[in-house]
Amino acid sequence: MDLRDVAALAQPTGEKIMLLVLDGIGGLPLEPGGLTELETARTPHMDGLLASGDAGLHVPVARGVAPGSGPGHLSLFGFDPLEYRVGRGVLAALGVEFPLQSGDVAIRGNLCTVDDQGIITDRRAGRIPSDEAQPVLELLDGIRIAGAQTFVRPVKEHRFLLVLRPEEATEAGIADTDPGVTGTAAQDVVAGSPASEPAARVAREWLAQVPGVLADQARANMVLLRGFATLPDWPRFPDVFRMRSLAIAAYPMYRGVARLVGMDAIAVEDDPAALIPALRNRIDDYDFFFLHVKGTDKAGEDGDFQRKVDIIEQVDELLPDLLATGIGVTVITGDHSTPARMRSHSWHPVPFLLHGGSGRGHRSEGTAGFGESECAHGSIGSIRGCELMPLAVARAGRLGKFGA
Amino acid sequence: MDLRDVAALAQPTGEKIMLLVLDGIGGLPLEPGGLTELETARTPHMDGLLASGDAGLHVPVARGVAPGSGPGHLSLFGFDPLEYRVGRGVLAALGVEFPLQSGDVAIRGNLCTVDDQGIITDRRAGRIPSDEAQPVLELLDGIRIAGAQTFVRPVKEHRFLLVLRPEEATEAGIADTDPGVTGTAAQDVVAGSPASEPAARVAREWLAQVPGVLADQARANMVLLRGFATLPDWPRFPDVFRMRSLAIAAYPMYRGVARLVGMDAIAVEDDPAALIPALRNRIDDYDFFFLHVKGTDKAGEDGDFQRKVDIIEQVDELLPDLLATGIGVTVITGDHSTPARMRSHSWHPVPFLLHGGSGRGHRSEGTAGFGESECAHGSIGSIRGCELMPLAVARAGRLGKFGA
Repeated sequence: MDLRDVAALAQPTGEKIMLLVLDGIGGLPLEPGGLTELETARTPHMDGLLASGDAGLHVPVARGVAPGSGPGHLSLFGFDPLEYRVGRGVLAALGVEFPLQSGDVAIRGNLCTVDDQGIITDRRAGRIPSDEAQPVLELLDGIRIAGAQTFVRPVKEHRFLLVLRPEEATEAGIADTDPGVTGTAAQDVVAGSPASEPAARVAREWLAQVPGVLADQARANMVLLRGFATLPDWPRFPDVFRMRSLAIAAYPMYRGVARLVGMDAIAVEDDPAALIPALRNRIDDYDFFFLHVKGTDKAGEDGDFQRKVDIIEQVDELLPDLLATGIGVTVITGDHSTPARMRSHSWHPVPFLLHGGSGRGHRSEGTAGFGESECAHGSIGSIRGCELMPLAVARAGRLGKFGA
Repeated sequence: MDLRDVAALAQPTGEKIMLLVLDGIGGLPLEPGGLTELETARTPHMDGLLASGDAGLHVPVARGVAPGSGPGHLSLFGFDPLEYRVGRGVLAALGVEFPLQSGDVAIRGNLCTVDDQGIITDRRAGRIPSDEAQPVLELLDGIRIAGAQTFVRPVKEHRFLLVLRPEEATEAGIADTDPGVTGTAAQDVVAGSPASEPAARVAREWLAQVPGVLADQARANMVLLRGFATLPDWPRFPDVFRMRSLAIAAYPMYRGVARLVGMDAIAVEDDPAALIPALRNRIDDYDFFFLHVKGTDKAGEDGDFQRKVDIIEQVDELLPDLLATGIGVTVITGDHSTPARMRSHSWHPVPFLLHGGSGRGHRSEGTAGFGESECAHGSIGSIRGCELMPLAVARAGRLGKFGA
């Protein structure tokens, strides 16, 4: 269903909704036949919600596709990530909370090493540490171009954000200069159409200054650019669902994705317990709350099965206090799976539970509690990630009838 | 799958199919953990079909979306209601069985109250009773416009149907005059494009006469118009599925939706028992039969859990006689859920059973009988409503192979 269809049905009154995202919550057993991280965790409060709620699995992007953080969250927000595509440059800007403006062209950059013929010998400048990259990136931030502002911001190690703000209106359809391999020179900046030529001109002039500025650097003596992108012109989440909407997250990336769809966002400490006072303080000001827990994903990426279990259990203990703030409908899920066994994001469908509002009640399930196996047999079945938000909104009494 | 794809596969021979719709059959338990209306009902014959059939849940429009009767039935007929949209005016015409012609513009009207400045004080004229509205609507039906015929028909209380039949060809892209709120005047008639101007002109001239005609009325002294629509130009169900198709229904709305997709339709008394002789008498003349039972939806809308149970049980008792007419493949389902607990249409997926023909058999299920929990774990799983008809047609041996 198109977001315009959703917007035509959405009503501005109803219960408050909490979307509690345990990043990368989905997992795998360490041994075939074993339990996943979520199944291992002792989660009496989530199990209690499940007992009078509904469960299922969601596929964030498409079967077999491991989502990045951007698409994974867009899907949870009801935006089909195959339709609502966000460029790598914009994601880089969200990740460092750069205040992108309409018309800016955001680009993901790498510091790299080239020889005296300009041939790339290391695409990541030896994975130069962040503290060593910092002064190099400050040099790049000092480059000045006529007819445009330019900004360079560190991301991590060799990675940085470049933002071009030409005085002329421009599009961002420009090919990557990063050839993706060593042993060749960087690609020229080529605009895909005349509409992207203003940004391409600025990028060329900026790049032309880089070798001089970085002439004294041992290994970070050139840059590679990819993912030229502008802020997308999308429907706003608060308009589509007619809810005043707040993101509460410790990491800028997640606040950024929430702001990208028009939510307000506030930062909290990187501790799930910090979510409780943050939610309680703003409960009267908003209808929808997106709460983000990062630790589960980090533990999964680190291959630390037990730490992921521990964080899930910690969040479970917070649930009663979160719900006591005045939440009517609760969604607990992840933006993707990050099985500790794989140490990476994966394509595995993500368990979710829905509780409160006019739901059906999870009468038919066993007693295994919230987990992948239980959700695979949940009353809602397997759905696309972007179908989850309309279900939550319907439960909250906020979605009207389609047709007469 | 597109209806053109279905049509390319459909074969004109095979078993006879009965689609038995218990309107609003899907429900909710009154208490968490309890039984739904369908689960409460004693349905030995449906349970028997399930024991050698297949079960699942269908989503009529989209997850989280409560369907109106029109979209709900279109979905059962295999027409994706997100693609095949029907205007409110056309639905109003179907509901009173007005014989719409190609080129007619059908409009849903409300009698309303305005003050002497033309400001709306009541959008429904105090929900004027039908018998009081009747003479007012006869006055409106008497309005005459040069270059067009116009028709006014009562719907219920303040609601009426207005049909414009201009001599000129016209489209119906005209904005509602109903502002949706009181304290303001009605909107002007504005055509969205020149192609809709002929109908807009007629609507303006018709509306200009209304204040004079209704000058003596105490509360129904003006009208509001919305949902300007023409008969859609859609594929015909009998052509798509290559079946001679008959609707048997007590209520005009359901015969109307069936006729909209090209079925024949006959009226019966508002008693499920009347379906048996109606089906028996026409069994040789058609391949497909859509039988409609309204009482389940009405009981749900009235919040009468037990009456909904009783009607389901009554229909169950009729099943052997219905099947004995010569039906090969049976589909039993609803067009949407109407939980008595909610007193309204809801978004909850709708249980269905498929029996007869070359089915799989319901081997994997328990013995709970036909109901939401059993169907949530049925062998077919959760599907879109518009996927149900191809499944039934395939079982009946009426759908050929896709590709060589």
